[in-house]
Amino acid sequence: MSIKLYDLAGIDDRRFSSNCWRTRFALLHKGLPHITVPKLFTSIHKISGDNHRTLPIITDGKTTISDSWAIVNYLEAAYPHKPSLFDKQDSLKSYSEFLQHWSLKAISFPLLQIIIKDIYDRLDPIDKPYFRATREKRFGKTLEDIVKNSEDNVEQFRSGLNPLRVSLKHRNFLSGKKPLYPDYIIAAALMWPRSMSPKQILHEDDTLNTWFKTMLSLYEGIGSKQPKEWVGI
Amino acid sequence: MSIKLYDLAGIDDRRFSSNCWRTRFALLHKGLPHITVPKLFTSIHKISGDNHRTLPIITDGKTTISDSWAIVNYLEAAYPHKPSLFDKQDSLKSYSEFLQHWSLKAISFPLLQIIIKDIYDRLDPIDKPYFRATREKRFGKTLEDIVKNSEDNVEQFRSGLNPLRVSLKHRNFLSGKKPLYPDYIIAAALMWPRSMSPKQILHEDDTLNTWFKTMLSLYEGIGSKQPKEWVGI
Repeated sequence: MSIKLYDLAGIDDRRFSSNCWRTRFALLHKGLPHITVPKLFTSIHKISGDNHRTLPIITDGKTTISDSWAIVNYLEAAYPHKPSLFDKQDSLKSYSEFLQHWSLKAISFPLLQIIIKDIYDRLDPIDKPYFRATREKRFGKTLEDIVKNSEDNVEQFRSGLNPLRVSLKHRNFLSGKKPLYPDYIIAAALMWPRSMSPKQILHEDDTLNTWFKTMLSLYEGIGSKQPKEWVGI
Repeated sequence: MSIKLYDLAGIDDRRFSSNCWRTRFALLHKGLPHITVPKLFTSIHKISGDNHRTLPIITDGKTTISDSWAIVNYLEAAYPHKPSLFDKQDSLKSYSEFLQHWSLKAISFPLLQIIIKDIYDRLDPIDKPYFRATREKRFGKTLEDIVKNSEDNVEQFRSGLNPLRVSLKHRNFLSGKKPLYPDYIIAAALMWPRSMSPKQILHEDDTLNTWFKTMLSLYEGIGSKQPKEWVGI
């Protein structure tokens, strides 16, 4: 029986969740047969009751797991003979944990303040009231006010990605010669604005584009085939 | 003939340079016989003329190299049978390049605005006018003005170290089971405030202390034996 990945979806079946993309790349890397099941924010609670409130969630037979980090650890343990996401090296697991935390602060959080209204615009109408209410409560202002200075913030966001550019200057992948979980974490973080915002998040001559293009081409171009909004690759 | 490491020194022979500590740890890791030669900012130009203007500089026979990253690459290439600083894995080299850039932005630059006056106070009197003039020109204000809000900045600095705490939660070293160049980069960055500032840079119950204590104990406790100023380990 295939693994099921419950995956956040917007309009036009846009799979926009960075957290879900990490798991999707992980399943593809390990070559595990799986299907993805699109879900709305407001229907997550139907999957397994109140046990799991965020996506991704996977079911593998009778096992249900949420949280992308728990999932990747489960997949490594349950399928040790499939290609490892960490090349079976603890140093790559450490690098992954570092990047996961770093990308939240350096990519996802600043980006949210740039694209939150664009995301809202591309959500299923059923999800919109929930998204607006929870996010406006969290920020203490309207979605429209959150993105007021977004043009200035884009420049700052771009320069925050410099540590990635330094690492990619001398190799094709963050993980070295082949893509591993560190690359999937960052590519997943960029799949989010790619599918949800028409803002030019990466400048066209950004050296990161070369790496991201390669990441989009993996697994029969699953990344590049997704609906996209952004200007660029 | 031993390798010579030209190493920045303050009063009481304080070896305070993070960049020099990276190289020192690298030489110790590889087990290469070496001596360190203390130098002042204002005497760097005497080592090999205007070819190399910053420390560390090493000489190995007739070879002279500056820049800690160039040096570690030289050592790996010149001494392939000695323990590798990257465990011979390109992924660890990538992690190192990422951390080197990250630590500059997340550790060294914010710290400089907290401890720059403390550093000045612990420089050899010969170096003081040079240090004050160049740093005040760079910041566009006096050393005293730079550190005016340093108490507030310490708290923000500490929380910026969270990606390290996440990675060290599940392992003894950033590099996994043993210390490698990623660990040396971060330990070197902390040797700097440890030797030059009485400010409490890490809170006493910070989980990073456990790791840093181990790093200080390596190579017969070379780190812990250095003159220290800070409150803590």
